[in-house]
Amino acid sequence: MRRTVTILGATGSIGRSTRAVIAENPEQLQIAALVAGRDAVGLARIARETGASFAAIADEGQGGELAAALAGSGIRHGAGREAVLEAVERDSDIVVSAISGAAGLEATFAALTPGRVVALANKESLVCAGAAVMGRARAVGTRVLPLDSEHNALFQVLGAEPISAVRTMTLTASGGPFRTWSAERIAGATPEQALAHPNYAMGAKITIDSASMMNKGLELIEASFLFGLGAEQLEVLVHPQQIVHGLVTFRDGSVSAGMAVPDMRVAAAHCLGIDGRLDAPPSRFLDLVAAGPLVFERPDLARFPALRLAMAALAEGGAAPAVLNAANEIAVEAFLAGRIGFPAIPALVEAVCARARSVSRPPADVAEALAVDQDARNRARALLSEGGFAVT
Amino acid sequence: MRRTVTILGATGSIGRSTRAVIAENPEQLQIAALVAGRDAVGLARIARETGASFAAIADEGQGGELAAALAGSGIRHGAGREAVLEAVERDSDIVVSAISGAAGLEATFAALTPGRVVALANKESLVCAGAAVMGRARAVGTRVLPLDSEHNALFQVLGAEPISAVRTMTLTASGGPFRTWSAERIAGATPEQALAHPNYAMGAKITIDSASMMNKGLELIEASFLFGLGAEQLEVLVHPQQIVHGLVTFRDGSVSAGMAVPDMRVAAAHCLGIDGRLDAPPSRFLDLVAAGPLVFERPDLARFPALRLAMAALAEGGAAPAVLNAANEIAVEAFLAGRIGFPAIPALVEAVCARARSVSRPPADVAEALAVDQDARNRARALLSEGGFAVT
Repeated sequence: MRRTVTILGATGSIGRSTRAVIAENPEQLQIAALVAGRDAVGLARIARETGASFAAIADEGQGGELAAALAGSGIRHGAGREAVLEAVERDSDIVVSAISGAAGLEATFAALTPGRVVALANKESLVCAGAAVMGRARAVGTRVLPLDSEHNALFQVLGAEPISAVRTMTLTASGGPFRTWSAERIAGATPEQALAHPNYAMGAKITIDSASMMNKGLELIEASFLFGLGAEQLEVLVHPQQIVHGLVTFRDGSVSAGMAVPDMRVAAAHCLGIDGRLDAPPSRFLDLVAAGPLVFERPDLARFPALRLAMAALAEGGAAPAVLNAANEIAVEAFLAGRIGFPAIPALVEAVCARARSVSRPPADVAEALAVDQDARNRARALLSEGGFAVT
Repeated sequence: MRRTVTILGATGSIGRSTRAVIAENPEQLQIAALVAGRDAVGLARIARETGASFAAIADEGQGGELAAALAGSGIRHGAGREAVLEAVERDSDIVVSAISGAAGLEATFAALTPGRVVALANKESLVCAGAAVMGRARAVGTRVLPLDSEHNALFQVLGAEPISAVRTMTLTASGGPFRTWSAERIAGATPEQALAHPNYAMGAKITIDSASMMNKGLELIEASFLFGLGAEQLEVLVHPQQIVHGLVTFRDGSVSAGMAVPDMRVAAAHCLGIDGRLDAPPSRFLDLVAAGPLVFERPDLARFPALRLAMAALAEGGAAPAVLNAANEIAVEAFLAGRIGFPAIPALVEAVCARARSVSRPPADVAEALAVDQDARNRARALLSEGGFAVT
């Protein structure tokens, strides 16, 4: 019997990878419901192509356009928060949670139901509310699988070993477009330069985070909640080839490394085939001879202070990761809009974090996480409008 | 409670690594019985140091020397085949099987008892009688763990996955001292040159096998029996840094690589800590930054025909691997004695294998394996004495 998959974030890059894997395995998998943020026309097209039974658009204002685009298809649909939650609640074996931002957090929580598999790519679910999400998943019996390449690699190579067998986990980072740049040159980086990621085509936000290495910092925080490891057991190595995605070092000196071509479909296929590996097409297998020498470097926290800030937030715990994440989102928006320079991203994040030292308890649920998130955004916006971070 | 360990091959290099790990973990592990081949004085010294309860020397002629060396120690001892089997049969949780050659085969079989862990480094057990050994282990409920770095790495990264999830397994090879040599230069290689292994200090036989790449061929055959994969799913990559020891490529494109510093104590620690990882000293953890670029090359079957012969024997099945192994032992002996040149090693093996095509059934037990082994040795010696392979 085919397993049914609901995709939250169907029109984004992870949604696209997920759909590609489902299309490659029509005997094993079929789409249930689809959710997108704002692109009603794209969502309707995908829903028709994949034979989805339900399509929801988060942006309520796009409801009319979705209805028009689905006219005559027989596909049920809806718009707004309630429609998104209806999509999540409809019957499906696997929910792929790839809506970015706070909207994805609520939908992810709703997806945590007994017996289900939730393939998680929504960063906020773990960064802002990791303790709550993982606690709920354990309590209700949901299997949470990481869909990011790095966490998926770590999940696979940890396998059935208890976490007590682990000495450290290492996430690799491409190093981004500024890996070899001097601090001075990075200080003058433009949005266009920061958007030139060497290996993956991703959304603008995550590409800027990759350039600042904040992305890797947020991933460290995600790994902490996913695997139950503290900051002192989590490390980053820069690995420009992006062939090794994560490494588990066991207490006895054995190291298991998760590798794959840099293609999000590999991790997606692992999650969708969790109860029986799917077959990848021949072109998706790693050729280590062709991949060339694999090189590993320590990250430079002086040139990439965002990574240092994320490590500090992880070590601090409580609401610090949620504050960091919210401040960073505002900072990246401002950078992309040309309002602040590249070094002002970590500077603004640091300023916001410095004023939020008092929230020592991690958010207990979605509402608390969203409140912390909103508060940090407001503080970041206030600091921005004071003008101290503006491009001069 | 401490787990007890019996070491078959206590004075060899694997025995040394095993003892080192036991000495590092006195709260978890203690020696039960020790077996060595000929070095009675070395065995007695080790038995006294480790507090062994029993020591056996395989060479019956060394019994007097062992008795003298253990005088006053209170350690029980014996010499010859019966004493070796007594050592195996004495109570112990883990048996490390690291006697090389045919003698190790019988002892390994005897060690396969219910509930025990057998950490296997005796190549002949799998190359000559792999089907029989693994069949018996399954039947009586012995956990067989591979102690070679390569197979141990594969075992670890396969983890709890079913073998049906695997597309290929890859064993890495250092490439040996002749990795960059031309075929002409290899043809004139001396025993001294062949004994200069770049990374490991091992016995002479295995070091020559490493130079010819026959060692990797024999390891492919071992992997085939350990994991139940055919020749078409087993591959070799040359990896001079010897950091990645083995790779499992899953059907979905995910690759899990087993890594460690090139130190046999890591695999030994994994086997001895199979029910709870042991802690390695800080110096035994891999530093990927210091390890330098990791490079992978395809093996050159033209310059290293021994690997091609082993692959052919694996594909042929039946008694072919046992014949290959026996012929190779005689050929290496002759090379080390200066009787034949380096290229005559694979040439002699090929000639012996070519005359043994008729034995299509794998040896069913120790006796059959030993008969095939003896027959192939006799044929190899006969061919040698005909003089066609001699150094001219």
